[in-house]
Amino acid sequence: MLSRVRSAVAHLVSSGGAPSQRPKSPDPPNTTSALSAAAETPKSPRTRPGSQVGAPPKTAETRASFSRPTFLQLSPGGLRRADDHAGRAVQSPPDTGRRLPWSTGYAEVINAGKSRHNEDQACCEVVYVESRRVTEASRESTVNQGLCFYYWGLFDGHAGGGAAEMASRLLHRHIREQLKDLVEILQDPLPPPLCVPSTPGTPGFSDPSHLVSPQSCWSPQKEITHESLVVGAIENAFQLMDEQMAPERRGHQVEGGCCALVVVYLLGKMYVANAGDSRAIIIRNGDIIPMSREFTPETERQRLQLLGFLKPELLGSEFTHLEFPRRVQPKELGQRMLYRDQNMTGWAYKKIELEDLRFPLVCGEGKKARVMATIGVTRGLGDHNLKVCSSTLPIKPFLSCFPEVRVYDLTQYEHCPDDVLVLGTDGLWDVTNDCEVAATVDRVLSAYEPNDPSRYTALAQALVLGARGIPRDRGWRLPNNKLGSGDDISVFVIPLGGPGSYS
Amino acid sequence: MLSRVRSAVAHLVSSGGAPSQRPKSPDPPNTTSALSAAAETPKSPRTRPGSQVGAPPKTAETRASFSRPTFLQLSPGGLRRADDHAGRAVQSPPDTGRRLPWSTGYAEVINAGKSRHNEDQACCEVVYVESRRVTEASRESTVNQGLCFYYWGLFDGHAGGGAAEMASRLLHRHIREQLKDLVEILQDPLPPPLCVPSTPGTPGFSDPSHLVSPQSCWSPQKEITHESLVVGAIENAFQLMDEQMAPERRGHQVEGGCCALVVVYLLGKMYVANAGDSRAIIIRNGDIIPMSREFTPETERQRLQLLGFLKPELLGSEFTHLEFPRRVQPKELGQRMLYRDQNMTGWAYKKIELEDLRFPLVCGEGKKARVMATIGVTRGLGDHNLKVCSSTLPIKPFLSCFPEVRVYDLTQYEHCPDDVLVLGTDGLWDVTNDCEVAATVDRVLSAYEPNDPSRYTALAQALVLGARGIPRDRGWRLPNNKLGSGDDISVFVIPLGGPGSYS
Repeated sequence: MLSRVRSAVAHLVSSGGAPSQRPKSPDPPNTTSALSAAAETPKSPRTRPGSQVGAPPKTAETRASFSRPTFLQLSPGGLRRADDHAGRAVQSPPDTGRRLPWSTGYAEVINAGKSRHNEDQACCEVVYVESRRVTEASRESTVNQGLCFYYWGLFDGHAGGGAAEMASRLLHRHIREQLKDLVEILQDPLPPPLCVPSTPGTPGFSDPSHLVSPQSCWSPQKEITHESLVVGAIENAFQLMDEQMAPERRGHQVEGGCCALVVVYLLGKMYVANAGDSRAIIIRNGDIIPMSREFTPETERQRLQLLGFLKPELLGSEFTHLEFPRRVQPKELGQRMLYRDQNMTGWAYKKIELEDLRFPLVCGEGKKARVMATIGVTRGLGDHNLKVCSSTLPIKPFLSCFPEVRVYDLTQYEHCPDDVLVLGTDGLWDVTNDCEVAATVDRVLSAYEPNDPSRYTALAQALVLGARGIPRDRGWRLPNNKLGSGDDISVFVIPLGGPGSYS
Repeated sequence: MLSRVRSAVAHLVSSGGAPSQRPKSPDPPNTTSALSAAAETPKSPRTRPGSQVGAPPKTAETRASFSRPTFLQLSPGGLRRADDHAGRAVQSPPDTGRRLPWSTGYAEVINAGKSRHNEDQACCEVVYVESRRVTEASRESTVNQGLCFYYWGLFDGHAGGGAAEMASRLLHRHIREQLKDLVEILQDPLPPPLCVPSTPGTPGFSDPSHLVSPQSCWSPQKEITHESLVVGAIENAFQLMDEQMAPERRGHQVEGGCCALVVVYLLGKMYVANAGDSRAIIIRNGDIIPMSREFTPETERQRLQLLGFLKPELLGSEFTHLEFPRRVQPKELGQRMLYRDQNMTGWAYKKIELEDLRFPLVCGEGKKARVMATIGVTRGLGDHNLKVCSSTLPIKPFLSCFPEVRVYDLTQYEHCPDDVLVLGTDGLWDVTNDCEVAATVDRVLSAYEPNDPSRYTALAQALVLGARGIPRDRGWRLPNNKLGSGDDISVFVIPLGGPGSYS
């Protein structure tokens, strides 16, 4: 995430908290899933799901290093090439290894020098969710007690790589923890019970026969869908992931923050959750279906201003919640300038008063827009320590860790092999748009046989290469001679025709 | 607005504040416009535009009566028929009188008995905006100094008719006051100046030659459009209208509140501003273009919950900002119930604690949704005195007077006589939908010659009749035998092919 945080440089070295260059897993890297994933978490019931997701061990040795997604299966030499700002070689999982689930395509490239390492991270997993009801006795039976979900995540770090790396390792586990309470409910065709009698982990939880006075629960009250429970589980998982990064939890403190764009495929539906400025689109039969929107100081201006208005103490004496088209000059006191309050989408003139000379909470346009003159994204994970430059004013209160979740029902449409969900960090979208991506999808996929599983990796590589450009005239340039993206670029291409063979 | 406020009955009689059954104007009722409107406001410069819009005189005699829009030209007998809940006769401007601007069609009908009078109000005006720069000397010259806008407004009152009537008389004047500062700027093809040196009313205001250091104003700063200035003017006019209804301003206090849906046509563009649950749609070549959205406890849940979360004192000890699918019972303490917090769109289970037994700030679904168990709309004007039933807790802090403004550029499309903008209060939309309205538009307009100006009134009448139904089986029923709308119903039909002949 290029220049996403002004003070990024100060934090570059300490990607802290999460280990890197992990010893190679004895499992194939693409299968840290099902039983192996389940085995990583303790099995006793807990009251606080957030505390159930183990943090990776932290050692002095790992703090200074960096890592790339395990599924890239990089050798030490490969890792060095992936870390080379001059060559900016595009990285993808090896053709020879086990493919990612659904034959997902992936490609990434490091930035052109704006940060020491690639601060994007990625994760692709098959995750098995065991019900919290499962006892030791029932575990030994052959009855299937759980659910399985497919998971893809892109994490775009800023002010250090620690938050992105931690999220790439743990967020899907938080989602799993949240879903554990819902295993039976999601598999029951009846609407979810509004009230359940006991705490999770005790026998009978969510067993219909134990429902509290079903009459009063079910009568003319609001009916909650299964889908909205999965959305709620993902939302709460994001919040718990964010809390786990908080400085109070010294055991696994991380520097910096990250945007998070994740996809969960569960029971026929894709849940696309976005907190930040990455983007997901579906290309279906050539049509573009947006599956996310970006959260930036511009798109979230009114939320930010409202918070500053209701809680002026968060602005210190340095900022005003009003927006002005430019910084007001002291000599302009008493004159009239255009402004926008938190309730307005239009502009009006106001007489400049003393406190209008403060810096606007939200300023700038496009990629230069900033909250408190510091950060250019307004949702994501981490950033607990982020302060206004040359000040002790914390920025975190203005940031939200909650994603917007959009749902796409895969069963409502017969997908062909050319229908794909494309996820990209802002390194991709800064220099290209939905239509250009759709054109690349068409061009690349039509060059491959429909049943060639390598076509999605080729497409991801083409998208990354098209955004990076080639070195020319002292910079990375696109065919039209405009500057390519100097940011980290990461792309997933998920074929939508695939789930049948994996579910 | 049917059952919009639980405590409505208590306020029914006092529609106070605004006069009714006004003495017939010496001007034709449809032309309270241009010079006559301008002449009604004082001419000296003022510092507070809100205080510049005169309130109608209040007398003891007028408080107990009621009024209908002047353009209906109702005789005393006609007024009685319009007020008859049993007959529910559809009212439209007379064929013999002067037509409304643009041959606008209008029809209304009173409710089926839920309130003593029709609490909807309407306004249709041509408004002349004189620049604040104009001096006595220049006023006498023949040079055109001003701007003209066309204006349509629907106001759906609740808990009394006073707010709707006051808004129908004054809101367009507040808009005019806001636009007075912008007359030269809007007519100048250059982008608006970011900063202007002097207060309005002094010579040289907004004269380009008087701009403050144009260099610093114009350089890489945000460019503000003319359109966004008009949007800002309308937004601030809504706020000032709302303030004028506040109880502190005893001179013209009003009971109750109202939704407001207004359209301003200015310099080729339609500005559709909505605060409440009325709705505007454009039917163009058979296609439906939504021009507003409704603001209800359901659509604004997250804004309301966030406010309750940030300012818990607004909830007293009676409400919780959390949403539950139904009221939590004391016996359920310690059990787990579905809930939704202000950051969530999905649902999750939480352990019920003592304060969850409070009533949810937002509850219910559809037309039964309520804020603080009281009011079913979350934006509008007035309601300054509204309290929670059997409590002193004020509801106003949760209500917003700010409209959402959507802009439609009439010059971007060649409109035919069948292209219309339909405005309706919720009495219309409760029993019909966009598609059914589009079908009625097609059916009715095709039965008239394209150049017959009465076709839009016929269409408005057909829409109102179609929503009211006919008396049968102890109720008003639609052809499909479902219940018709028992609410006040008001509809404007504005032909989009019209402006050429009026601008």
